[in-house]
Amino acid sequence: MNEKQNINKDTFSTKNYVEEISNYLENYQNSKIDNFLNNTHNADIADVIQNLDPVLRLSLINIIGNKFDPEILTYLNDSLREEIVETLDIKQLANNAKELDIDDAVDLVEDLEKEDQDTFLENLEEKERTLIEEGLNYPEDSAGRLMQRQFIALDQFWNVGQAIDFLRNNKKNLPEDFYDIYLINPKKQVFGVVPLGRLMGSKRDVSLNKIKNKELRLIEVNMDQEEVAYLFSKYGLVSAPVIDNNKIIGSITVDDVVEVIEEEREEDILKLGGVGHTDIYNSVIDTTKSRLSWLIVNLMTAIVASIVIGLFEAAIEKVVALAILMPIVASMGANAGTQTLTVAVRALAVKELTPSNALKIITKETFIGGINGIIFAIIISLLSIYWFQDFMLGLIIGSAMVLNLIIAGFAGTIIPLALDKMKIDPALASAVILTTITDVFGFLSFLGLATLFLI
Amino acid sequence: MNEKQNINKDTFSTKNYVEEISNYLENYQNSKIDNFLNNTHNADIADVIQNLDPVLRLSLINIIGNKFDPEILTYLNDSLREEIVETLDIKQLANNAKELDIDDAVDLVEDLEKEDQDTFLENLEEKERTLIEEGLNYPEDSAGRLMQRQFIALDQFWNVGQAIDFLRNNKKNLPEDFYDIYLINPKKQVFGVVPLGRLMGSKRDVSLNKIKNKELRLIEVNMDQEEVAYLFSKYGLVSAPVIDNNKIIGSITVDDVVEVIEEEREEDILKLGGVGHTDIYNSVIDTTKSRLSWLIVNLMTAIVASIVIGLFEAAIEKVVALAILMPIVASMGANAGTQTLTVAVRALAVKELTPSNALKIITKETFIGGINGIIFAIIISLLSIYWFQDFMLGLIIGSAMVLNLIIAGFAGTIIPLALDKMKIDPALASAVILTTITDVFGFLSFLGLATLFLI
Repeated sequence: MNEKQNINKDTFSTKNYVEEISNYLENYQNSKIDNFLNNTHNADIADVIQNLDPVLRLSLINIIGNKFDPEILTYLNDSLREEIVETLDIKQLANNAKELDIDDAVDLVEDLEKEDQDTFLENLEEKERTLIEEGLNYPEDSAGRLMQRQFIALDQFWNVGQAIDFLRNNKKNLPEDFYDIYLINPKKQVFGVVPLGRLMGSKRDVSLNKIKNKELRLIEVNMDQEEVAYLFSKYGLVSAPVIDNNKIIGSITVDDVVEVIEEEREEDILKLGGVGHTDIYNSVIDTTKSRLSWLIVNLMTAIVASIVIGLFEAAIEKVVALAILMPIVASMGANAGTQTLTVAVRALAVKELTPSNALKIITKETFIGGINGIIFAIIISLLSIYWFQDFMLGLIIGSAMVLNLIIAGFAGTIIPLALDKMKIDPALASAVILTTITDVFGFLSFLGLATLFLI
Repeated sequence: MNEKQNINKDTFSTKNYVEEISNYLENYQNSKIDNFLNNTHNADIADVIQNLDPVLRLSLINIIGNKFDPEILTYLNDSLREEIVETLDIKQLANNAKELDIDDAVDLVEDLEKEDQDTFLENLEEKERTLIEEGLNYPEDSAGRLMQRQFIALDQFWNVGQAIDFLRNNKKNLPEDFYDIYLINPKKQVFGVVPLGRLMGSKRDVSLNKIKNKELRLIEVNMDQEEVAYLFSKYGLVSAPVIDNNKIIGSITVDDVVEVIEEEREEDILKLGGVGHTDIYNSVIDTTKSRLSWLIVNLMTAIVASIVIGLFEAAIEKVVALAILMPIVASMGANAGTQTLTVAVRALAVKELTPSNALKIITKETFIGGINGIIFAIIISLLSIYWFQDFMLGLIIGSAMVLNLIIAGFAGTIIPLALDKMKIDPALASAVILTTITDVFGFLSFLGLATLFLI
C-alpha cells in the first residue's frame, strides 16, 4: 500500500501540486503549507515556486521566511532565482547553508551580485568560506567549479579491512555521497579507483590494489565541463578524482555531470534557434533585448538578399512570374541546408565529425544535395511549366534548384566545420550564415539564369 | 610520472589513435594492434572503428575476429553497428557475450534482424537468454528495457552488520556495479534505499531502516525512459528500484540514464532541424530518403506562399519594389517566430511551460512580437523610403512588419502547445507549420496592404 503513495509522489505532478498550494495560500492554511514544505523534496518545492502565480509565489516565500533552504535556489531557473534572492535575507540564507554541498554553494554564490556575495560569504563558517572562495577561483564552466571538496582517498597499499575500518571510524567526516574510493600515495598522486560495491564484496585481507578499476580516468581541474561530461558519459563513470599539479584536490560525481549535460543540451537547442541564454521567466524587456541581436543580423542578411533581387528589377518587371517563383528556390535551399547543418553540428558535438573524415562527409553531403536537387528540380519544373505555360521558365527554375541544393549541402557542412576550426561554437552562428548563402545564391541563380536565357 | 600517461589516455584523442592504428594496419603490424586492443577501453575501440577508413575498418574487424567483444557494438553508432554485425559471426558473438550486462544485451539484440536475434539468443546460456527475452517483452524506450536484473535487495529489518556479512558471503553473485541497497519485505515490496557510502560509515548494530534515504523514488517498469531520465536528473539519483505490480524486479543506474539523456538531446536537435533519425554514417541513399519527406513538406508550403504572391501579380507588375522587399517581411517573421518557438519547445520539454502558465506566456510572447515589430518597422520603413523614395511604401512595409511579428510571437507559442496537447512531439512539426504561417502571412499583409493603399 505504502508503495502506491510513493509512486504518486515519484511521478510528481507539478500541476496538481500548484493548484493545491495555491488553494492553501489563498485560504491562509499555513499549517497545510508547513506540512507540504516539511515533506517535500527541495526540487519539488522549487518546481512549485516556479509555477505559482507571482503574487502567491511571494506569499509562499514569505511563509517559508527564515527557514528558506538555499538548496531550493539551486533547483530554480536562473532568472527566477535572481528575482527571489532579492526578496531574501542573505545573512539568514548563509546561516541556513550549513548542509549545502560546496559545489552547490559555489554554483549559488557565482550568480549572486557582488554585494550579496560578500554578505553571504561573511556569514559562513570560515572552513566553508575558504572552500567556496577557492572554488570561485577556478574558471567558469571548469571541473574546479563542479567538483566536491570532500572525497575518500586512502593509501594505495592498504587492504580491504583497513579501508572498511577507516570508513567506520571516520563516520562523521564522510562525504554525504560517495561511490568510489581513490587510492593515493603520500604525495597525493592518484593510482586507482575502487568502487564501493567491489570493496564490500571483497575479503578483509585483499589488497585494494588488486580490486581497483582496470582504467583510471583523472580530471584536470581546468578541464572544461563539457569535456568532463563527455568522459563521464563515454566511460559510464559514477565519480572521478580531480587533480591539480598531479595531486588530488576533489571529486566529481555523476549527478553534477547530469546537470551539465542538461545545461549543454539546452544551450545547443537555444543557440540553434537563434536565442541567447533565456527562459520563459525572463521579463519582457530582458527577453526582447536578448532576441534583438539575432533579429538585427537577420534583417541585414534579408536586406542583402533584397539587394540581390534589386539587381534584377528589369527582369522581374518583364516577367512577374519570377517574383512569384523565386521564394521557392531560396526556401528549398534554406531547408535542405538546415538539415545538413543540423546533422553536422550534432556530429561535431559528439565528435563523430572529425578532421579525419571531414572531406568525405562534405563530398557526401554535396552529392546528396545534388540528388535532392535533381528530384525537386523535376517536380518544380513541371509545376512551373504547367502554371505559367512557359517551358524555358521551367528549365531555368529547375537548374537554379539543382545549383542551390548543391550549394546548400556544401555550405551546410563546411560552415560548421570552419566555425569549429576558428573556435566559434558552430551551433551559434551556422544557421544565419547558411540561410544568407542559400537565399542570396537562390535568388542570384534563378534571376541570373532568367536574365541570361529568358529575357 | 605514471599519472601523466593516464591523463593522456583520459583525454583520449581519437584522431591520433586513428592515425596510429591506420599505420599499423597498412603495415600489417598485428602485434601492435593486439596490444592496442588489449589495453584500450571498448568505448575507445568503438571510436577508432567509427573513424577508420572503411577498408581499414574491415581489416581491423577481421584481425579482432573471434575475440570481438559484443560490448564494442553497444558503443557504436546505429547505422555502423548494423553494417558491422553483418560481417560478424553471430554465434561466436553470443559466445563472447557472457560478461555483457543484461540491459546492454537487450539494447544490442533489439536492433538485430529477426534471424540474427534467434541465432544470438540460441547460443546464450539459458539463464541469460530468459532475462534478455523478458527484457525484450517490455515496450521500447521503457524502464523495463533500461533496467539491470541484478540488484541487492535485503530484508528491511536487518542491521548494518547483517548487510555487510551478506555482501561478503555472496561475493560471486554481486552485480558488477551497485551503489545502493534496496530494503524489501518478503513480498518483495520496496521500503527504502540505503546508499553504500552510508552503510560503510555506520556501526554494525544500526538498523538499515534508520539510515535509509528520506525519500523513496520507485520506477514503474512501463515508465517511459524520458520520464525516468527526468526523475534521475531532478532528484540527483544514482540508482533506483524498478517495480512491477509493486514488486521489485530490477534496478536502473545513472549510467544508463546518461545515455538516455544524450539520446533524447540528439533527437530533439535533429527533429528541430527537420531531419529524422540519422547520422553521418548512413549511406547516401538512406540519408537522401530520410530528408526527402521534410523537403516535400517544405516544397508544398513554399508553393502555398507562391500562390499567395501570385494573387498580387498585378500589384507587383506595377511596383516592382514590392517583389524586392517582400522577402524581408517573411524572413523576419520566420526568424522571430523560430526564436519564440525554440524557447517554447524547450520549456515544454523541461516542464516549465504548463497548462497553468500557458496563457500568460502566449500573451507575453505576442507582446514581445509587437515590441520587436515596432522596432524593426521603424528601421525598415526608413530604409525603404530612402531606397525607393516612396513614403507610402515605407508605411506599408512597416505595418506589415508589425503585424507579421505579432503573428510570429503568437504562433511560436500556440503551435507547440497545440501539438503537445494533441500528443504530437512539438520538436518535430512546429518549425514547418510556423514558417508556413509567417511566410504566407508576411506576403499577404505586405502585398495586401500595398494593393489597398499603393495602387
